[in-house]
Parts: sequence; C-alpha cells; structure tokens
Amino acid sequence: MTNTNDEKWSPAGLSTTRIEAFSDGVFAIVITLLILDIRLPNLSEATVASELPRRLLALWPKVIAYAISFIIVGIYWVTHHNMFHYIRRSDRVLLWLNVLFLMCVAFIPFPASLLGQYGGQQVAVIIYGVCLILTGVALAALWWYATHRRRLVDDDIDPELVRLASRRILRAPVVYLISILLSFVSVNLSLVLYLLVPLLYIFPSRIDRHWSRLAHRSGQPDKQDPPVPVP
Amino acid sequence: MTNTNDEKWSPAGLSTTRIEAFSDGVFAIVITLLILDIRLPNLSEATVASELPRRLLALWPKVIAYAISFIIVGIYWVTHHNMFHYIRRSDRVLLWLNVLFLMCVAFIPFPASLLGQYGGQQVAVIIYGVCLILTGVALAALWWYATHRRRLVDDDIDPELVRLASRRILRAPVVYLISILLSFVSVNLSLVLYLLVPLLYIFPSRIDRHWSRLAHRSGQPDKQDPPVPVP
Amino acid sequence: MTNTNDEKWSPAGLSTTRIEAFSDGVFAIVITLLILDIRLPNLSEATVASELPRRLLALWPKVIAYAISFIIVGIYWVTHHNMFHYIRRSDRVLLWLNVLFLMCVAFIPFPASLLGQYGGQQVAVIIYGVCLILTGVALAALWWYATHRRRLVDDDIDPELVRLASRRILRAPVVYLISILLSFVSVNLSLVLYLLVPLLYIFPSRIDRHWSRLAHRSGQPDKQDPPVPVP
Amino acid sequence: MTNTNDEKWSPAGLSTTRIEAFSDGVFAIVITLLILDIRLPNLSEATVASELPRRLLALWPKVIAYAISFIIVGIYWVTHHNMFHYIRRSDRVLLWLNVLFLMCVAFIPFPASLLGQYGGQQVAVIIYGVCLILTGVALAALWWYATHRRRLVDDDIDPELVRLASRRILRAPVVYLISILLSFVSVNLSLVLYLLVPLLYIFPSRIDRHWSRLAHRSGQPDKQDPPVPVP
Repeated sequence: MTNTNDEKWSPAGLSTTRIEAFSDGVFAIVITLLILDIRLPNLSEATVASELPRRLLALWPKVIAYAISFIIVGIYWVTHHNMFHYIRRSDRVLLWLNVLFLMCVAFIPFPASLLGQYGGQQVAVIIYGVCLILTGVALAALWWYATHRRRLVDDDIDPELVRLASRRILRAPVVYLISILLSFVSVNLSLVLYLLVPLLYIFPSRIDRHWSRLAHRSGQPDKQDPPVPVP
Repeated sequence: MTNTNDEKWSPAGLSTTRIEAFSDGVFAIVITLLILDIRLPNLSEATVASELPRRLLALWPKVIAYAISFIIVGIYWVTHHNMFHYIRRSDRVLLWLNVLFLMCVAFIPFPASLLGQYGGQQVAVIIYGVCLILTGVALAALWWYATHRRRLVDDDIDPELVRLASRRILRAPVVYLISILLSFVSVNLSLVLYLLVPLLYIFPSRIDRHWSRLAHRSGQPDKQDPPVPVP
Repeated sequence: MTNTNDEKWSPAGLSTTRIEAFSDGVFAIVITLLILDIRLPNLSEATVASELPRRLLALWPKVIAYAISFIIVGIYWVTHHNMFHYIRRSDRVLLWLNVLFLMCVAFIPFPASLLGQYGGQQVAVIIYGVCLILTGVALAALWWYATHRRRLVDDDIDPELVRLASRRILRAPVVYLISILLSFVSVNLSLVLYLLVPLLYIFPSRIDRHWSRLAHRSGQPDKQDPPVPVP
Repeated sequence: MTNTNDEKWSPAGLSTTRIEAFSDGVFAIVITLLILDIRLPNLSEATVASELPRRLLALWPKVIAYAISFIIVGIYWVTHHNMFHYIRRSDRVLLWLNVLFLMCVAFIPFPASLLGQYGGQQVAVIIYGVCLILTGVALAALWWYATHRRRLVDDDIDPELVRLASRRILRAPVVYLISILLSFVSVNLSLVLYLLVPLLYIFPSRIDRHWSRLAHRSGQPDKQDPPVPVP
C-alpha cells in the first residue's frame, strides 16, 4: 500500500495516488513521443545504397536533441516523483497546479523538435528556454503551494529540506534565463549552456550525500530523509 | 490500499481499480496527443532566418487551442477522479458507460484541432460544441447510473452531494448548447463563450468552500465531505 | 491491496499486477490512437467556407469505424479485466500468451483504418476479420492455458464459469469466420455482420443475469460469482 | 500491497512502485507506436480494386518487422518485470540507469522501422544491432548496480541467480555483436541471426525448469525462487 492511500479518507483532502498515476502516464507518453521526431529518409531504390549512410548521419542533431529532451523530461519525472514522496494530501488547487505543470511538460516536444531542426536560429533558442522556464516555475509553484504553512505535507517536515528543494528546482529556470540573454550575443553559447543544465541535476548532489550519510549514521533515520526533492 | 480494493471481493460487483487505471491512461494519452497538432513549419535554409519568427508567431491560435483543450480534458479528469472517489463497485453497465465517456474524451483532439485550424467557421464551432455536449452527457449518465437508488455508491452518501454534482456536470453542456445557438448570430461570440466555460470549473466553487468549512469545523468530518465531484 | 498481490510471494508464480498495468497501458494507447485516423481536410482560405461542411460530412465512415473499433477494443478490455479477476498467478507462458494477445490488439488500428478507407473492398474485409479472429483465439488460448487443470486459477473455480467463458470468447471468431466466407457472396453483408458482433457482447448476457440473481438470492454469494469473463 | 511498498519508508531508499509504473507506461507506448509504421497505401478509386491486394501484400516485411520488434520489446518488459521482483529499494543512480535504459527502449522504433524499410542495407543492420546492444548493456548495468554488494536487493539473494541472470541478459548483446560483424560478409546472414535472438528468450530456459522443479519439490520454496530475471 502506498503512503498516499492512508490519506484517502483523511479530512484534509484527496489521495495523491491517481495524481501520480496520471502524471506518470503523461511523462511516459511525452518521453516516448520524442522519438517520432526522428523520421526515416525516403529514398528510391536506385539511390538508397549510396545515399542512406550519409542521410542517416545527417540525423545526428535530432538524435542529440532526442537524448537531451529525454534526460530533461527524466529530470522532471525524478523531481515530481520525489516531491510526491512528501506530499500527503491534495486539493483542487494542487490538482490544477499539477495539470498546469503537465501542460508545460507535454509542450516540451514542440520546442525540442524546433531546436533539433532550427538549432541555429535565436528564436528557437528563446522559445525552448521560455518553455523550460515556465515548466520549472510551475513545478516550484506546486512545491511552494504544498509546503507553505505545511498545507499538504507533514507538519514536521524538515524546513531545510523544503528550502533546499525549492532552491534546486529554481536553479534550472535561472540558467535558462541567462541562456536566453546570452543568445543575443551568441546562439552557440546558449546551446552549450542548455547542454550543461542536465549535469546540474543528474549527479548526486551534496544534499544527497548529506542525507545518505545521516541515514547510515543513525541506523534509523527519519523516514523523510533519503529522497530529496531535486529537479 | 485504495478504497476501491475493499470492494474487489464484495458480491455487489467488480473493483473499480482497473477502471481508474485504464481511464487515467486514456486521459494521459489524449492530453499528450494534443501537442502533435502543433507542427513545425518546413523552411528552406535560405528563408529560415527571415521567415521562422513570423511563421512561429502564426501558430498562436494552435497554442491557445492546445491550452484550452488541455484544460478541458483536465476538467474531465478531475471530475472523473472525484466521482470514482464515491463509486464503490462496478458492473457491466458502468464499464460500458465509462467506455462511452472515454470514447467521447478520446474524440476531443479532432474537434479541438478543427477549431484550431478553422475557428472562424460555424461548422467547426458546432462540431466542437456537440462533441463536448456528448462528453458531458455521458459523464452525467455515468454518475446518474452509479448513484440512482445508491446502486454503486454507499447507501449513506449525502443526497445533497449527488444532486449538486449532477447539476455542476450538466452546467457545461448547457453553456455549449447556448454557444451553438449563438453561433447562428455570431461565431466570435460562441468562441468567447467556449473560452469562458473552463472558468466555471477551475476556481473553487461555493460547494468546495462549504465542505471545506464543514471539514475544519467538525475536526472529524465525514470521509465523503472533502472531494466534491465537479466537472 | 489487489487480490493479485497476495500471490506475489507465493511459490506458484509471479504476481499479475504488472501484467494488468502493462496491458491497461496498451489498451489505453490503442484505443486513443484510433482518433489519429480521422484527419482534418486541408483547405485554402478561399474555399474553406463552401467546402468545409461537405468535407467534414464525408468523414462519417471514419467516425463510424472509430466508434466500432473503440467498442471492439473496449470489449477486449472488459474481457481481459474479467479474466484477470480469476487468474491468480502468472508464469512465463502466460506472460508470452498475453504479449501475443496484446500484439494482436495493438495491430487492430491498421485493419480498422483499412476498413474505414477501403470498406467496399473484399481484401479489407478479409484482413479485418482475420486480425480479429487471431485476437480472439489468442485470448481464448490465454484463458484455456490459465484454467486448464486449474493451472493459474483457484482450484475451486466454478467449472461452468470456465466453460461458459471460453464459449463466449470464441463466439466472435466464429462470426468473423462466417463474415469472411460471406464476403465472397456480398461484401456489404459482411460489413453488416461486423456491425452486429459488438451487440453480442455489450448487453448483459443471460449469464450475467443468472449470476446476479444468485448473488442477490444468497446474500453472501461466492466471491467469484459476479464478474463473468466474457469477451 | 506490492512488495516494493514495504520499502517506501525504509531508510535505505525510495520505493520502486512508481519506477515500475513509469516504465510500464513507456513499454506500453513504445510497443503500441510500432503499428504506426505500417501505413495504408493511398489509392485512387479507379485503381483501388486492382491494386489494393498487391499493395497490401507488399507490406509483409513491415508486418514481420512489427512482430519481431513487438517480441523484442516484450522480452525487455518481461526481464524488467522479473528484475524489479528482486530490487527492493531505489536511489538516484538506479533512477537514472532506468531512464537510460528506457531511452534505449524508446529509441527501438526508429531502427526497427529502418530495418523494415531498408532491410537489405548494411548500415540499417548495424544501427539496429548497435541500438539493441546499448539497450542490453544498459539493462545489465542496472542489474549489476542493484545487485553489486547487494546494494538494492535482499542480502540473502541467491548468488547463483544474480550470476545466471547477468549472463542471460548479456547473451543478446553478444549475438547482436556477432551479427554486426557477420554483416560485413552477408547482410542476409545477419538478418537471420536477428530473427533467431528472440528464440533464445521466449522458450522456458533450463533455469526456469530448475527453479520450477525446486519449487514443486520443496512445497514451500523460497519466495525468490520462481521468477528468474532473464531478458
């Protein structure tokens, strides 16, 4: 039984089980639709032998865009997963903040494919950045709403955790904002910065290691320690 | 453990767990497919720098249509979520009413994209309205079937709740019907009305506030109080 | 907690929880992809006002095909749902029979769209029928494998139930076979028969009413009574 | 309640429930998207009667490619299912190894459709092989990470099981590597080898039979016996 089910009947709000299931569905579809953007070249039988390798090689920017977008959506999934580890109840506002966040996530394939096809154009870089900023801000709003005055989380949640998580979530939007500004100087510089954002999140953070050390030292650490909601 | 599992072995019918999981899947896919409607412009290298920004800007009606459709599907998901909070058992008729409802929901991307592309045409406005009326009526039928003589809900469900929920569900179809009639006068007026429908549902209703006040006052409110099935 | 989880650690086999979740996902996607087959007409601004209504009207065979396919996939989902109500364990063979069944289900959009576009052609009618026969046979094989010598079901499952369920599952393939043979006489006759198949399954069967009467009479009927695995 | 939920609150890490749900979603979508590759021929009314059968027959390599890819994705799903039967906890590294694995799985439709359309070209054979090698290696890495020093599995997991599972997972990549090398001699030989790989996995292995015999003999075999993580 998941931790969220206990809350199903609590007076404070709805269970989060179906929110998680629905969100997982959206994440899974978005992440899988990304591949549809890589299309086979159409070649006649006469030219296929000579042309196919070259044409497939020309797809590499799309493959890179696929991998990056997959990782970015993966980061959001990991963060969402960690957040809902702490969120105990839901209410109408949370449902809608979550729908808003998913609307941004489901939009990602469009700017991702824009960047894959017209990566050299500043307008593509800006739209991509704006979309990811909105996604990050929606997620931060969801976390803020749930944790503010401990509205939908446990009363004794570690305040340090709440603060650190918010800060980490907002790190990406800040970098994307810088990247957009940089694009007025050099589009290529922006692209490099976009490539670096995932690295901020994939590797275990100091925060993870901190909690993990705590967990090992105490033997019976608080149940809330291990997963740190990081984007 | 979800509240629906208790019913799995009850004589009165099947569990609702898989109905919810299946429906969540359909909702998640429908909502994510909406993005496929926003397609990249195909530009030659010579014209891309000058043309791309203008061509992307020209996509804004599709982006609006995306956002509106996402919110409308989101409203149905929230309502379905709330309804199955009360529905305890299922039977063959409920399964099929649910399939009928999902058939309408899965159809929404078509009229939505019709409206996004040919929003100025009356026929697009009518088809969109008819589709959403059918969806709303299917959902109301499901709720009526489940609650009539307490067929698939608890015997002591609040009759006020049943009545209020039905009325709220049917509010949208009524507005869509007015909107269709209005389209004979002015298509733009209909479109404005379509834009306003979501506002009827997103904001917390008097009903929410009523239950919420009850919940806080009593301390131990009835388990059925907080979530009000509203579309 | 679902009934299948109790089996997770039983020596006799794997849990069926993830099989159901995975299958629900495939069903939900197949059923939702059907809408992608109904495409918007592309019209120039000059002709849209005069052409659009006529062009949309011309889509009606696709809308009918959508509704029928949706209902057929829905029938398989309902049957699969009911079957796994009784299947307690899984093993490698069951996993693969289920994958085989899902492979047939996931193939349905192709013959469905073939029928929607070239409904008057005998070859379309035959391919559609063959695909649905294979789907039905795969499902019957799954049910036979699970129930034969009570391999993956409870030992005390009602033998009448096992027999009746098999017979109902195989009813559709038989009708499809007749329909294929009929297509050599008249393609339209076949199409009418295809339209009638869902009616065999949607309405409550004598079997349902029988069990339901039992359930009401006894007050405490056997837990296995209410859901009858019918396709 | 699933076995993974017990771990939700354990200090050692996150639950694996949502990882499984998310992965099931990706698998279900990938497997269903494969059908989108089989497209209807577009024929005029004049030629349809004479052309349609021939044109549909010409689709058979795509149908074969569909079936093979479906089975290959099915194999990975079965293995993933079995693996997570043993994995008790998760941490950030596991989450990301899983995302990496899913990225490979979600990529499969591209080389699969490449092979379906240009099966005779060596470059298609190589890309297909490389993609499946990466998928297999990612899965092996995930299993190694989880079981190394019993990091995320039970301490008393059978070491024989761990070793045999790794070996079976890596069997496919080895065959694919041989197949790629063979393609320099004969592309057709490679294709035959690709066709044979699934056979390595679908049929019950000696390992299955071994465990199954154990299970029947002891009456109360260890809970970990029956499912053997094989790809």
